[in-house]
Amino acid sequence: MSAPANRPGAVPTRPPVRRGRRPFEEVRQAVLRAAAQTLFEAGIAGFTIECVARRAGVSRVTVHKHWPSRGALALDAFTDTFHNDLALHDTGDVRRDLHEVLGTFARLLASKPAGPAFAQLLGAAQIDADLAEAIRERYFAPRRHAVLGILNAARERGEIPADIDVTVMVDMMWGACYNRLLMPGLTGTLTEDFARSVVDVALAGAGASPRA
Amino acid sequence: MSAPANRPGAVPTRPPVRRGRRPFEEVRQAVLRAAAQTLFEAGIAGFTIECVARRAGVSRVTVHKHWPSRGALALDAFTDTFHNDLALHDTGDVRRDLHEVLGTFARLLASKPAGPAFAQLLGAAQIDADLAEAIRERYFAPRRHAVLGILNAARERGEIPADIDVTVMVDMMWGACYNRLLMPGLTGTLTEDFARSVVDVALAGAGASPRA
Repeated sequence: MSAPANRPGAVPTRPPVRRGRRPFEEVRQAVLRAAAQTLFEAGIAGFTIECVARRAGVSRVTVHKHWPSRGALALDAFTDTFHNDLALHDTGDVRRDLHEVLGTFARLLASKPAGPAFAQLLGAAQIDADLAEAIRERYFAPRRHAVLGILNAARERGEIPADIDVTVMVDMMWGACYNRLLMPGLTGTLTEDFARSVVDVALAGAGASPRA
Repeated sequence: MSAPANRPGAVPTRPPVRRGRRPFEEVRQAVLRAAAQTLFEAGIAGFTIECVARRAGVSRVTVHKHWPSRGALALDAFTDTFHNDLALHDTGDVRRDLHEVLGTFARLLASKPAGPAFAQLLGAAQIDADLAEAIRERYFAPRRHAVLGILNAARERGEIPADIDVTVMVDMMWGACYNRLLMPGLTGTLTEDFARSVVDVALAGAGASPRA
């Protein structure tokens, strides 16, 4: 990878070899990569700051300087690895947007290592307050805010009736996917088709305008 | 507590003091009580067969004779303690039955110690295969079977359209409640009213006959 050093005003991302500290962004990327590898290989039970630091070739102090807790680091590693699958778009068509976002999410959760890692993060958060805070602040809160934005915009456009509590819809749609993720072997599998059915039931149940 | 020894044909539940083995049912009840106390006080992280056996005044071997794993014992303690709240009824009116069962379940999960204990059991099952098997076999499988029975009967009566996949409805209704249980502080609270709204959205979404 060549640094864009010749572009006017660009800051070289990989400076010439030199002594002293590695640049912040380089360290951050190395730690996130090491954290993702550790999470996917060892699971959350084997995920320690010490192990990640050793793998990234940095000190534990360096890791702690940038991440307040083990949970925060695990969550950032997860969302950084899968940021493309976790992207949200608001195209102005609520059914299409929900099919896309929940379908992509279901496909991600049905795959390895994303599905088991997410189930473990959510599971371990039930007995680990740091992890619970990290998953809430770094994952659920911003994501839920974005999804509610899509639904509220649809309500303002009249696609969803004004008196509907859209938080109930979100709990039902995402909850259905978590149900299949967390309790495998009971029910059908978690597929993109399942996610689309869930979206259709939620929209019909809310009295949304019928499929175009 | 007096034993019903005078009722004709009744088996005394507390026989006179004697040497030798305690009757099976007495031991089972003592172990389940001790297991529930341990689970609610120490959480799943502090739940060990050793601790339960000591509390119940029996040997670890005795506990292992009746329960194949720590997870099986924890699950039986939970379902035994809350069996009244977990009861299912099929009265022949699907909306009333679902309001009742999901409403009661939401109220249970919103209460202590049931809610935190259930969240911990479900969470720990994500990294503990014995516990995952116990929760699947001793809790989810029979319960899901019973709920699907209610929905399938409603479909046969014509209350729910014949082409609806009722497993999707179950994932959405129960998943919505688990979503609020497992991710507190993000969303509205888990209440009986929430559960009833969830049932109404699922039934309307499935095209069920409207509210009577």
